[in-house]
Amino acid sequence: MNTLIKTIEILGIIVFSLTCFYAARKKGMDLIGVYSLGMVTALGGGSLRDIILSRHPLFWVEHYEYAVLLLALAVVSSLVTQEFFERRSMVHVVLALDALGLGSFSASGASVADQLGCVPFVSALLGVITGVFGGVMRDIICNEIPYVFQRTELYATCAFVGSWTYLLAVHSGGSDITAVIACIGVTFILRMLAVRYTIRLPI
Amino acid sequence: MNTLIKTIEILGIIVFSLTCFYAARKKGMDLIGVYSLGMVTALGGGSLRDIILSRHPLFWVEHYEYAVLLLALAVVSSLVTQEFFERRSMVHVVLALDALGLGSFSASGASVADQLGCVPFVSALLGVITGVFGGVMRDIICNEIPYVFQRTELYATCAFVGSWTYLLAVHSGGSDITAVIACIGVTFILRMLAVRYTIRLPI
Amino acid sequence: MNTLIKTIEILGIIVFSLTCFYAARKKGMDLIGVYSLGMVTALGGGSLRDIILSRHPLFWVEHYEYAVLLLALAVVSSLVTQEFFERRSMVHVVLALDALGLGSFSASGASVADQLGCVPFVSALLGVITGVFGGVMRDIICNEIPYVFQRTELYATCAFVGSWTYLLAVHSGGSDITAVIACIGVTFILRMLAVRYTIRLPI
Repeated sequence: MNTLIKTIEILGIIVFSLTCFYAARKKGMDLIGVYSLGMVTALGGGSLRDIILSRHPLFWVEHYEYAVLLLALAVVSSLVTQEFFERRSMVHVVLALDALGLGSFSASGASVADQLGCVPFVSALLGVITGVFGGVMRDIICNEIPYVFQRTELYATCAFVGSWTYLLAVHSGGSDITAVIACIGVTFILRMLAVRYTIRLPI
Repeated sequence: MNTLIKTIEILGIIVFSLTCFYAARKKGMDLIGVYSLGMVTALGGGSLRDIILSRHPLFWVEHYEYAVLLLALAVVSSLVTQEFFERRSMVHVVLALDALGLGSFSASGASVADQLGCVPFVSALLGVITGVFGGVMRDIICNEIPYVFQRTELYATCAFVGSWTYLLAVHSGGSDITAVIACIGVTFILRMLAVRYTIRLPI
Repeated sequence: MNTLIKTIEILGIIVFSLTCFYAARKKGMDLIGVYSLGMVTALGGGSLRDIILSRHPLFWVEHYEYAVLLLALAVVSSLVTQEFFERRSMVHVVLALDALGLGSFSASGASVADQLGCVPFVSALLGVITGVFGGVMRDIICNEIPYVFQRTELYATCAFVGSWTYLLAVHSGGSDITAVIACIGVTFILRMLAVRYTIRLPI
């Protein structure tokens, strides 16, 4: 994975942790609670991907800078007021970055599974699992029914379509980087449209 | 595993997913939520078994047809009315099939652990884990205390007795197929009796 | 690991299961529910450590006597009255033993990760994960926001400081046994002080 992808992956980790810092503060957690929830949310999906596919060491065990980065973010977020996260503009920014993170993690899950020789359907599922599992764990810990299991604006569906986009691009001869960008683009645009026009699955 | 066992395993996956489709619909989930919950419920126990015992690839990564089957079931179940699941006869059918699935998964867990050289007690535990973990995750996601942890009509107990039945049959020289059938039979009958006569553990 | 460490580890398993037996009884669970919750609470942290670090067989699969011990404890605890656990002196004893268990599990997590060549920061995180994950799962199953994620008296923080103590001791030339004792001592004293003087993180 080159610099661009790595940058987007780190962006994904940052923004996934931001979405949970807000939830953590609302539940009255302290710095360690905020940090732990950030770890689970940002690293949970990739960890499950690595465990399912038996990839060792896990990505955050190998790249310890992710865990250090999350600690720094947790400290900074603890100094920011709750109002900052609740500003309308901030909500929009987080929503957009979250969609980028979702696309990026989905691409990484589909890519790893594909390279290990999984059939496309399973690779697409691993894309979705990598993209959404962190958020699922965040919601379970916060004692709520996970967001993605509810009637949302196409959250997991975007990850699923994005993963298939990646796989189609790679299997039709595209380069890895093109496929990743296509996956992130499709996931992002579909999610933004779904949120803007409140598109939900009919059933 | 021969055709009979495979048939029963698929039956177990089908019926475990049915039990959760009902729960998913009650919580107002859409197709993707229903499908995701079905995956977790039907494949969760076997996945944890494979992860604990370091068996790779995981069974549903190798047999992708299970995941495809569950998608088809989720689509079909979305077209069925809620009333259908709530019919008295349907409740009885699901209860019976669920007991068959429990026995089948317990046998597979005990069998895999036993072949990998675990001591019988650990093999029996893995039988129970394989049988009940999917349902535990279903209930956690639905934000409820897992059914098996409550004072139920011998749910996990049936899986435990069934797993021991399998192990006794195999270690006393029985064939694998005989042992599996014995496990499913004992689990099924014990569970049906417990439900019929409301048998619970005294403590 | 020598006899002293093993003794403390078993003490940790015993007391971690005690903390959950009380919770299980309050939720109206039967013997199997109590036992299952005890298994998850006492063995969950070490299991996750082994899965993350790809250590197979898992420690309780190898040492089946832990699972048998927990079954015996679950049976005994079912015969004890609820009042026994609620006595003021018993609460203090459990709190102290729990802190010992936390220190012991943290030392084992940090030790295993360190020996496998993880960087200290990741080893310390695995110490914390090993120490607290069992309790997190217990609280999730009981449908509550996990204790360690709340504004507690430095629970995870104690495990984190204890894990660093272990790593500093080992990397500055101390023997493994010295480092383990230092870890348990620091974790225990810090936790007891925090509970006694209601010390919490400022943010």
